[in-house]
Amino acid sequence: MEDLTPSRIVRLEDDAVVLLDQRRLPEDEVELRCASATEVADAIRDMVIRGAPAIGVAAAYGYALAASRGEDLDEAFETLASTRPTAVNLRWALEEMRPEPTRERAQALHEEEVERCRRMASHAAELVSPGSRVLTHCNAGALATGGYGTALGAVRRAWEQGLVTHVWVGETRPRLQGARLTAWELETLGIPSSVIADGAAASLMAAGEVDCVLTGADRIVANGDTANKIGTYALAIAARHHGLPFIVVAPTSTLDLATETGAGIPIEERDPTEVSERFPARNPAFDVTPAALITAIVTEVGVHRAPYRTSLPMPARSGST
Amino acid sequence: MEDLTPSRIVRLEDDAVVLLDQRRLPEDEVELRCASATEVADAIRDMVIRGAPAIGVAAAYGYALAASRGEDLDEAFETLASTRPTAVNLRWALEEMRPEPTRERAQALHEEEVERCRRMASHAAELVSPGSRVLTHCNAGALATGGYGTALGAVRRAWEQGLVTHVWVGETRPRLQGARLTAWELETLGIPSSVIADGAAASLMAAGEVDCVLTGADRIVANGDTANKIGTYALAIAARHHGLPFIVVAPTSTLDLATETGAGIPIEERDPTEVSERFPARNPAFDVTPAALITAIVTEVGVHRAPYRTSLPMPARSGST
Repeated sequence: MEDLTPSRIVRLEDDAVVLLDQRRLPEDEVELRCASATEVADAIRDMVIRGAPAIGVAAAYGYALAASRGEDLDEAFETLASTRPTAVNLRWALEEMRPEPTRERAQALHEEEVERCRRMASHAAELVSPGSRVLTHCNAGALATGGYGTALGAVRRAWEQGLVTHVWVGETRPRLQGARLTAWELETLGIPSSVIADGAAASLMAAGEVDCVLTGADRIVANGDTANKIGTYALAIAARHHGLPFIVVAPTSTLDLATETGAGIPIEERDPTEVSERFPARNPAFDVTPAALITAIVTEVGVHRAPYRTSLPMPARSGST
Repeated sequence: MEDLTPSRIVRLEDDAVVLLDQRRLPEDEVELRCASATEVADAIRDMVIRGAPAIGVAAAYGYALAASRGEDLDEAFETLASTRPTAVNLRWALEEMRPEPTRERAQALHEEEVERCRRMASHAAELVSPGSRVLTHCNAGALATGGYGTALGAVRRAWEQGLVTHVWVGETRPRLQGARLTAWELETLGIPSSVIADGAAASLMAAGEVDCVLTGADRIVANGDTANKIGTYALAIAARHHGLPFIVVAPTSTLDLATETGAGIPIEERDPTEVSERFPARNPAFDVTPAALITAIVTEVGVHRAPYRTSLPMPARSGST
């Protein structure tokens, strides 16, 4: 994916944060210009950009833009932080920016996040056996991180090392991030893949056609419980039932060590019309996979295993890497 | 659902089998007229009518129509039987019709199938605890059976008895039979329900918002292994993980006691474009839930429990009820 550079996904220009509009992929590659923190917040809420690390980066740029425009920075902080409740990266990135809300710092934070992806991909690839058929869910690729990707970065690295033979992509209802974004990234990278209905994953496991499951995360708390896109928990249960590794790949900016267990993670309920426009519906956007179902959590620091309360590292500080 | 009478779903007129086109529900209620066995077969293959019992009934009518038109009946048999490989009801219904391929016999087979639904609904309702929030998948309602329904018939009966407080409807990708057909039937019946993404079921179970899972079946073999719509197996694994009852409701016409285990069930692979029009995809239409995950199988005869090899009854014979 030579051309899916970090700056193409999200960047700060003189007067705007410019986002690749992920709602319109793969059909159209269109950019959206956000001229204020409020416009960046609206774009995050509307999922113009999504993925925990990527919305952290977008919020950092939005905050720097607000500072350069002389906006009220406390207000900008809260506006950006409150857009989506589950991903902790959003608040992490804003806290990183608060002491020095400059363009340079936001740019550095973005570059560091991509660099963390490359490092965690190398660590995670060590867990992938030769000849693996990997299952992933949602989009934990370059688009979700502002460059390279977490779980999909690991797939990419493992593919480059000749370890991966096929990628199963859960379509990820209701917003179809897998069918639209992950399939598009994999096609661009030339990695053989097949989209499947989310409900088909377990039967592929039963048929012996899946070797491991790799997903990203929106928030990982102190005991290792992990929030990720709705449907992840069902995959973790099915992986356990079939004795398959279930591996979470995420930067330390996704760690929320101040929260003890998954019960403390707020789960965003999105508009039910995303599921059904005609009938009543429920639309939780995330679910929580208990640590007990997670084989390993991989960050840029390395591979972490249970008990996670002692094995998880502290979140990185921007500029300290 | 006073107006969703069996004859509205599928009936035989003088010169045609008339089907309610389920592909166009809930938006449009349009009928399709099939003037030959081949046209009925095309309609079954294209899912104008679907659901194991319902396609058996449609095939029986198609066969009777072929006889009245003087078509080659061996050819009509094979054309109709080969439309969809997983549901065993298709071949069962045609075998029932072969000795006496009359309109009256087809009509009787239809009426008997609906009567079986009513009886199995009464049996299954006994397994539903008061105050239950029931999860179902795909459409196992009146539309799937030519009247009343199997799993959804049980929900209806349990609702009438005041046992059900809410129904969770898995949308059932890729064809959305849950979101389109089951939600429509439940709305018509006035039973409170919410459509969910298939991947959301497990997290609702974890949150304590599901009390039991009821599904239909496309084929149940001698050891109790059960083929049903893709996604069912994942629900059965999740139900077991959460200690919830997973109950299959189906008429004895769905039993294939000549096949020993689920490994002998052919799984239909449908056009990948049903999953993704843009990227490579896999589209198995069914999966197999092993008997070990099934709390009970309910037929018109009663409630059957493991070991199913000894507890399952013989399939009903048309005209013998």
